[in-house]
Amino acid sequence: QWMMLDWKPKRPDMLIDPFDLGRIVQDGLVFSQNFSIRSYEIGADRTASIETLMNHLQETALNHVKTAGLLVDGFGSTPEMSKRNLIWVVTKMQVLVDRYPTWGDVVQVDSWVASSGKNGMRRDWLIRDSNTGETLTRASSVWVMMNKQTRKLSKMPDEVRAEIQPYFIDSDPVVDEDSRKLPKLDEVTADYVRKGLTPRWSDLDVNQHVNNVKYIGWILESAPLAIMESHELASLTLEYRRECGKESVLQSLTAVSGDQKFDFLDSGDVECQHMLQLHDGAEIVRGRTKWRPKKMDSFGDMSQIPAESA
Amino acid sequence: QWMMLDWKPKRPDMLIDPFDLGRIVQDGLVFSQNFSIRSYEIGADRTASIETLMNHLQETALNHVKTAGLLVDGFGSTPEMSKRNLIWVVTKMQVLVDRYPTWGDVVQVDSWVASSGKNGMRRDWLIRDSNTGETLTRASSVWVMMNKQTRKLSKMPDEVRAEIQPYFIDSDPVVDEDSRKLPKLDEVTADYVRKGLTPRWSDLDVNQHVNNVKYIGWILESAPLAIMESHELASLTLEYRRECGKESVLQSLTAVSGDQKFDFLDSGDVECQHMLQLHDGAEIVRGRTKWRPKKMDSFGDMSQIPAESA
Repeated sequence: QWMMLDWKPKRPDMLIDPFDLGRIVQDGLVFSQNFSIRSYEIGADRTASIETLMNHLQETALNHVKTAGLLVDGFGSTPEMSKRNLIWVVTKMQVLVDRYPTWGDVVQVDSWVASSGKNGMRRDWLIRDSNTGETLTRASSVWVMMNKQTRKLSKMPDEVRAEIQPYFIDSDPVVDEDSRKLPKLDEVTADYVRKGLTPRWSDLDVNQHVNNVKYIGWILESAPLAIMESHELASLTLEYRRECGKESVLQSLTAVSGDQKFDFLDSGDVECQHMLQLHDGAEIVRGRTKWRPKKMDSFGDMSQIPAESA
Repeated sequence: QWMMLDWKPKRPDMLIDPFDLGRIVQDGLVFSQNFSIRSYEIGADRTASIETLMNHLQETALNHVKTAGLLVDGFGSTPEMSKRNLIWVVTKMQVLVDRYPTWGDVVQVDSWVASSGKNGMRRDWLIRDSNTGETLTRASSVWVMMNKQTRKLSKMPDEVRAEIQPYFIDSDPVVDEDSRKLPKLDEVTADYVRKGLTPRWSDLDVNQHVNNVKYIGWILESAPLAIMESHELASLTLEYRRECGKESVLQSLTAVSGDQKFDFLDSGDVECQHMLQLHDGAEIVRGRTKWRPKKMDSFGDMSQIPAESA
């Protein structure tokens, strides 16, 4: 699950991160943090995994809130939200990756928030190579409020809007919205099904819920290995529909669009539809991924590797 | 798999990490790096997971080698090792955790190497709270050389010893060696068996092998959830016996020592034996874990949390 964001008056004495890794810029409305990509954050392609990028988005969002002095009680609601038992939940996430960084690269993650419709908040991120300024990844997410007790979505109360509106930036989303409907899959329409997925202890967050970044791993478990070997993930759209707790048993469904359902090596871009659901059919996440062929030199000479086996 | 260490003459111009997160201290023989614990590195207990700690150990070992100018060709052997097609592989790992850090804590990881027997190298680590100096974790590992082509273990050639000996510190291991034999488990002697474990794409390292930190997650998959809910991992001993590739299907076996095999809530410390094996019986890892009861305030009031659900 995404950690929650909440909003309180700024405390200027908390604006300085002890490591100078994060800072408020642009009149206090954009938060910027650097990450050095660590050896264990890269995968078989020697580049940062999509989970790593999404972890950095989450960390930046949280540090934005924390550095601005908004995460004072360790909880996650404005005073007006807290009175009403409201929390933030993420409903949609889009990530576009132009290039994946590798071990030792330093990336700069900028993040800001904006209004979204009548009752929502949008959070955007921009990941750049901190040396060259090259844009590596853009991401956009939509958040709404949920009642913590009833677990039902809520309208945004006027009092809450008054609290958070000053933090909104008036800007278009950094990612064009993928507004095509994400289809519902079932065992007939899916090309690949992976059953019996269960959370590992280490997948759980402090609420004993599955952290939403972990869903990516499960979605990719039903994507054919041949795609991941020949292609790299270019974009991702996720719609979150339901919480997933530690006792859940999931199945992951993938349908490959177009003609090349089982032979990807000579294909160009590939698009997949995904669904994670409980075995009783309840939907957890719908998703869409787009894949582009890997450049061969990114996994060419496997002897040029800094790692070996135990 | 542990990334590999190799050794070349030092290049003083590479001693400075651009982020000042890592540095050589004590006459160039100890490497020291700080880590700020990130939100996604903490688990259900709100503390860093054992995988996180082991990731930090790996990153520090690699940066030690890299910062000293030893990882020049991106490979992992000294010139004399390279001539002979030799690589380092880890055979044993012991980790003792006194206290787990939490989100925002800054830890300092010190690491150094020493000789181990006739043909091996020992690498030790010390993790401390960077503010108080309190020791949080100690770890020790043993490495030997393997022929890259034949995958057989090798004696340490004299020419290699001459290259790496100057880097060895003459010190006792930071962890007393757990020299008790790790028993072989089977489906009869094990109390818990979890079958059909397969690597996720994101579990693979650049060799398309499973990174050895991932084994911890699999070992814990056969440990009963009740232990992880009531106890925290106090120590870990692993013996690595065999590589695990992307096509492997594993089973994880756990035996609980002593009387309290199925009721942990009122028990004191608990000891478990573990084994990861292929379905044909080939052993990947043997292990032992010790668990101590959690302090209740570390998972008491679940409303004091900075995170919420999507």
